[in-house]
Amino acid sequence: MSAIPEEFLEKTESVGKAAIQPFPGSEKVFAQGSRDDIQVPMRKISLADTDASFGSEKNAPVHVYDTSGPYTDPTVTIDLQKGLNSVRSQWIEERNDTIQLDGPSSTYGQHRLDDASLASLRFEHIHKPRVAKSGCNVSQMHYARKGIITPEMEYIAIRENQRFEESQTLIKQHPGHSFGAATPRIITPEFVRDEIALGRAIIPANINHPEVEPMIIGRNFLVKINGNLGNSALGSSIEEEVEKMIWGIRWGSDTIMDLSTGKNIHETREWILRNSPVPIGTVPIYQALEKVDGKAEELTWEIFRDTLIEQAEQGVDYFTIHAGIRLHHVPMTANRLTGIVSRGGSIMAKWCLAHHTESFLYTRFEEICEIMKAYDVSFSLGDGLRPGSIADANDAAQFGELETLGELTQIAWKHDIQTMIEGPGHVPLQMIRENMTKQLDDCAEAPFYTLGPLTTDIAPGYDHITSAIGAANIGWYGCAMLCYVTPKEHLGLPNKEDVREGIITYKIAAHAADLAKGHPGSQIRDNALSKARFEFRWEDQFNLSLDPERAREYHDETLPKASGKVAHFCSMCGPHFCSMKISQDVRDYAAEKGIDADSAIQQGMQEKSADFKEQGADIYKEV
Amino acid sequence: MSAIPEEFLEKTESVGKAAIQPFPGSEKVFAQGSRDDIQVPMRKISLADTDASFGSEKNAPVHVYDTSGPYTDPTVTIDLQKGLNSVRSQWIEERNDTIQLDGPSSTYGQHRLDDASLASLRFEHIHKPRVAKSGCNVSQMHYARKGIITPEMEYIAIRENQRFEESQTLIKQHPGHSFGAATPRIITPEFVRDEIALGRAIIPANINHPEVEPMIIGRNFLVKINGNLGNSALGSSIEEEVEKMIWGIRWGSDTIMDLSTGKNIHETREWILRNSPVPIGTVPIYQALEKVDGKAEELTWEIFRDTLIEQAEQGVDYFTIHAGIRLHHVPMTANRLTGIVSRGGSIMAKWCLAHHTESFLYTRFEEICEIMKAYDVSFSLGDGLRPGSIADANDAAQFGELETLGELTQIAWKHDIQTMIEGPGHVPLQMIRENMTKQLDDCAEAPFYTLGPLTTDIAPGYDHITSAIGAANIGWYGCAMLCYVTPKEHLGLPNKEDVREGIITYKIAAHAADLAKGHPGSQIRDNALSKARFEFRWEDQFNLSLDPERAREYHDETLPKASGKVAHFCSMCGPHFCSMKISQDVRDYAAEKGIDADSAIQQGMQEKSADFKEQGADIYKEV
Repeated sequence: MSAIPEEFLEKTESVGKAAIQPFPGSEKVFAQGSRDDIQVPMRKISLADTDASFGSEKNAPVHVYDTSGPYTDPTVTIDLQKGLNSVRSQWIEERNDTIQLDGPSSTYGQHRLDDASLASLRFEHIHKPRVAKSGCNVSQMHYARKGIITPEMEYIAIRENQRFEESQTLIKQHPGHSFGAATPRIITPEFVRDEIALGRAIIPANINHPEVEPMIIGRNFLVKINGNLGNSALGSSIEEEVEKMIWGIRWGSDTIMDLSTGKNIHETREWILRNSPVPIGTVPIYQALEKVDGKAEELTWEIFRDTLIEQAEQGVDYFTIHAGIRLHHVPMTANRLTGIVSRGGSIMAKWCLAHHTESFLYTRFEEICEIMKAYDVSFSLGDGLRPGSIADANDAAQFGELETLGELTQIAWKHDIQTMIEGPGHVPLQMIRENMTKQLDDCAEAPFYTLGPLTTDIAPGYDHITSAIGAANIGWYGCAMLCYVTPKEHLGLPNKEDVREGIITYKIAAHAADLAKGHPGSQIRDNALSKARFEFRWEDQFNLSLDPERAREYHDETLPKASGKVAHFCSMCGPHFCSMKISQDVRDYAAEKGIDADSAIQQGMQEKSADFKEQGADIYKEV
Repeated sequence: MSAIPEEFLEKTESVGKAAIQPFPGSEKVFAQGSRDDIQVPMRKISLADTDASFGSEKNAPVHVYDTSGPYTDPTVTIDLQKGLNSVRSQWIEERNDTIQLDGPSSTYGQHRLDDASLASLRFEHIHKPRVAKSGCNVSQMHYARKGIITPEMEYIAIRENQRFEESQTLIKQHPGHSFGAATPRIITPEFVRDEIALGRAIIPANINHPEVEPMIIGRNFLVKINGNLGNSALGSSIEEEVEKMIWGIRWGSDTIMDLSTGKNIHETREWILRNSPVPIGTVPIYQALEKVDGKAEELTWEIFRDTLIEQAEQGVDYFTIHAGIRLHHVPMTANRLTGIVSRGGSIMAKWCLAHHTESFLYTRFEEICEIMKAYDVSFSLGDGLRPGSIADANDAAQFGELETLGELTQIAWKHDIQTMIEGPGHVPLQMIRENMTKQLDDCAEAPFYTLGPLTTDIAPGYDHITSAIGAANIGWYGCAMLCYVTPKEHLGLPNKEDVREGIITYKIAAHAADLAKGHPGSQIRDNALSKARFEFRWEDQFNLSLDPERAREYHDETLPKASGKVAHFCSMCGPHFCSMKISQDVRDYAAEKGIDADSAIQQGMQEKSADFKEQGADIYKEV
């Protein structure tokens, strides 16, 4: 008997139904790589033809990056109790540098497995964990530095590059248009490898998470976003967390962090991992703290180490580790307006204070590296001293920790461990760039992964927006992944609608950054949507949008009838005032003259038009 | 019998109730200027004391800029049929440069007044219009250039400067904190005058809108936002528009544009003006087009001129006039992805095309100036060729028009007419700064007033967010006013909740820009809110926020009980994990030692703490 309710277990049943519907006008397609088992998913959005009044042309389908996994694939049946099919098992096995264990090698993992009272919560098809053979390093960085292109790297190259051909087509179709950032550039597997080898990007892909569809985090790729979930002491259940994960990736979350701090963290994580096609990150100190009943000072290296192994063997793809908080940083926070706001940071600061010594995260960092490379867990080096208010931004505590993270990056890289760096937090607009510049300098271009930043403190209830402003900017400056913020930030736990709102908001920030950075093909979707808008192809406009359901719903509030969706005007202006219509009149005028638009208009300007009446003295008609 | 329903006419009745409740924890207070009738409103937010666990201190009240007018003043009774009390009549009369007319001098205004069938719609207490005495110029710019400080200017100096004293107090109270942008700078009446004289700011304040509480638009002042309303051929009524106005200013709209294009535009405008404490802007060409049944080519200078006079005599404070579209610009748009998307722009382009000549807005510009200065209507020179998609941003058409707007600015200034310049639109992040730089150069630092800009096209349903990202940036770069965008942009007409969402989103963008620009006192509210957050003064956190109602509602969803609002933790983390609590533990530790925080922690680091047990070999407790 599982904690996941029956009605959610069958993909087609009602509870999770909204999360697994294919998007309208879309189908899941796959691009094959150099071998049969490299099948890269993408969502193909088919478009209607342009009608005669706008020049009768075919509109090529648009392919968009698809994080939703098999959930939106109607040809796949998913049993949440068995988990997803493996994408990477064969690749991992072929490398012949891992062994399969008989069971968990962590004390805690074994303890939970042996506990009969947990049977009702436990995922039923737990995999036997893999670990690197003695002396082997199984990180993607290690392979990259040996010059190897892994199937993961090739998969990613295809995934990041998918719009290349479309952008070529669109440019050919519309020679007169400016496509700005859409100038194509090809992402090759070699390029992926080189970025990984240099440490400028990471592929979070634990060997115990073979279900993952490989993705990359680095500033020369699409900007990624992370969505958080997790239960707390105050609420929520395993099934809710699994459903939130599926919901989050539907809307575009590239990775998911499981920040659970309540009961049954271990079992919740297993359910999430086995059903997640995106990388899962955690903050292991949260669980370690639960193991000592919330008493930070009782944390030990042994408990923490066991927690890392426990989670690595379940398949967590990246660990947030707050190893950058040094003893001498802690006093720097005492006069802050909002002290230490990172949970992990405050736990470690309290520990340091109690033990008057450097934290075990810092002193045992090389031992942590040994664990990371045995499973290919990536570091997400935590910013425990990130500012919690505008007043505390870019202060000595924050930047002192960042410098330490730079030192730790070098140690991680010595072990060929993939590493990204976490960043703030609350930072006003004019201070954001300094964060990015300093991070690139101090951390030798390791990818930056920031929370927002929030650009003002005065809008609780709207902090997805205060932070999206900062996120778009820092993404533009070079941040590789943006951790989402929901409308409930600072106020409460997000529900499903908050998760959707937060994720779409962050897709906007990431895409705005991609456009600004000139990522290949980024503008294809914008152009296709704008063209659909101009030509009153309403359905295409909805289907091309980040949230087709909301776009359609909002439209239908004022023009609900089917006729509204083919109307050559909309409810904002009504038929007379439609500027799109008038613009088309300009083009039609050109077409009517049988010449191209430019010269048609020039000609029109010079002809005397007899069609327009002279205005009389009685200037007003009856209205 | 009025079109405004009875239940809305009494301020205390239910329909409009949500729009007129004073904000919680707040009262309307007034700062008096050099004369008794300069009474500048602000909202005073009272705060609770900091409790003993955080150091027992008083928290000074925070004063915030208040756009809501008398509607949130429980001491004032408002009769919407009579309109608001006058703020400026005495000032206008004292200047002795205007005369009162017996009735409208526009043909159309007289026509509507004479039409008995409109009695049921007509505002009952129409003022007799004022106009400048022959040869007089009644613009604030004209006074400023003569060295005069008007009461309007003094009022504005007090209003913009209101947080100066608070910022001084807060800085004294917290000597250790960084207050960043809060470094105080005094806004004097002389400074206001000089900015107006130079054309770097405008005070939209028609002599026929004496109800207006003076405000200023310029980049050396707080960034302002505009909210739009207006009926269209497809829906909405006078009462809805009046209610939207009251609702909009409640949430912080600094000006309101009435973009009505449907029936009874004249009467709707009268109701709005008489009840609006904020400046009202319009796009007169919309109404002119209604007068010719939507046939752009039938527009004439005579109709347009009469419309300007009609609206100026009602009290419209600024006119959007698309005089910058030259004949030679029109062909530049034919190959755009989305042509001309400005309604005003497309109307004029069509007119130019039909008449193969420069528009009357351009050729009659000096005649328009004569009207503007007789009523002190400000120009908002429209960007009729603004880009409607990322692909069309910063193109030759857009920038060509901007250059023409620069030429027109010089003509307007020759007449001492206050002028601002409208801007885009859809612009990706990396192309925004060029807009601001070029506008300042071409238009000699006249204030810029932009719509967004939207930084991507792919998120219909969320364009308040795509555009807030652009708005915050351009505000930071120097844009003086941001025209809001609601979630319904591109899809339909906004309802009340959309208006609220759009306005709060734009208050965020404007405030993020103010912080980034270092406007005096901008950070006071952020700091007060963050301090309340840190000290778990939930009610203060709600009351200090831009939308106290939403903040409270979101909090209560997960911790609804009264006890939740005094809890020293929140629903995100629960009691054990609260980082705020741990930060306070750090401070408490210091307090306990009877020394200041810095050295306490240093001392703690060096002492051996005997309070923490040695960890045993059996690292796991029962969980």
